Amino acid sequence: MSERQQARRPGGRSARVGAEVHQAVTDLISERGYGNFTVGEVAARAGVADSSIYRRWGSLEALLTDVALTRLNAQSPMPDTGSLAGDLRTYAANVAREITGPDGLAVVRLAVALSGTGQQGLQAGADLRAERMRQLQSMLDRARERGEHAPDAFGVLDHVLAPMYIRVLFGMGPLTPDYVDGLVDRLL
Amino acid sequence: MSERQQARRPGGRSARVGAEVHQAVTDLISERGYGNFTVGEVAARAGVADSSIYRRWGSLEALLTDVALTRLNAQSPMPDTGSLAGDLRTYAANVAREITGPDGLAVVRLAVALSGTGQQGLQAGADLRAERMRQLQSMLDRARERGEHAPDAFGVLDHVLAPMYIRVLFGMGPLTPDYVDGLVDRLL
Repeated sequence: MSERQQARRPGGRSARVGAEVHQAVTDLISERGYGNFTVGEVAARAGVADSSIYRRWGSLEALLTDVALTRLNAQSPMPDTGSLAGDLRTYAANVAREITGPDGLAVVRLAVALSGTGQQGLQAGADLRAERMRQLQSMLDRARERGEHAPDAFGVLDHVLAPMYIRVLFGMGPLTPDYVDGLVDRLL
Repeated sequence: MSERQQARRPGGRSARVGAEVHQAVTDLISERGYGNFTVGEVAARAGVADSSIYRRWGSLEALLTDVALTRLNAQSPMPDTGSLAGDLRTYAANVAREITGPDGLAVVRLAVALSGTGQQGLQAGADLRAERMRQLQSMLDRARERGEHAPDAFGVLDHVLAPMYIRVLFGMGPLTPDYVDGLVDRLL
């Protein structure tokens, strides 16, 4: 069995190594900020050989992209509560929890950094944001189909997500439930 | 005359070196992203010795902080047009021009990165933001004194500045005059 086939096998050693390498990246971003560590340092922290990382991801940039995509896609699935206000409040609360959690700032900073790290990061960041905007738009479309008056996804981005991201990035937290609900209520 | 006294003398060689080093930092952030270059690379690009940078700024982090503070303070002074709508539209247009200009993304990314680079950057970033919020609040206070109904500075941050920053950071520009005016009108 080739190395590549092993890497694709779900579960087992490959999955454990993947999880450990991802956690090492998240920890290093938290401690040092984006860009201030090498593949060798990720490998040492994860307890794997440098060559394992290069074989599986190819470069530090590709690894960082993979971490950001995995984290941001795995978290905050789109809610379906039956009302637009319920959906948006739940969604906003999920995002707030995700970006103020222990790894939250690291993940937000990584998502931001992806827009400025060469073509691969740029494309990955654009794909990630386009996918999230599509999911968000589906949630808003469901509300419209129920006869509710709904903003578009860019309105949610500008007036619910952007304020939360900027307050986290600028260290102006915490995002209290009242603050987050207020952003949603103001938009609706 | 000691090196330190020379560095403090306004104009002349010291000012030219300062400007060249600042431009080198801005260029390197634009090309490679924050964190992906060394003091040696800044020095080579600016045409000065590494030791000149260490003597004047002490560290790469202190240099980056100085660049961000200088750029963000020099740009977009607070307008005083006589009406709140005029002030906010002018202010928002200035910020939009600043962050979508040739070095804009680099400066925004640097401001964001400062919140995650050790104590010195953290404090510098916090000082910078506090000073801008004070300037903004003064503009809003003038409107209140004229009898206008004004939002607070956090409302401007959340609903005018944050959407523009996030759209630039996520590469979702351009910020058209209609879009920027729309953010202000919506807030008022």
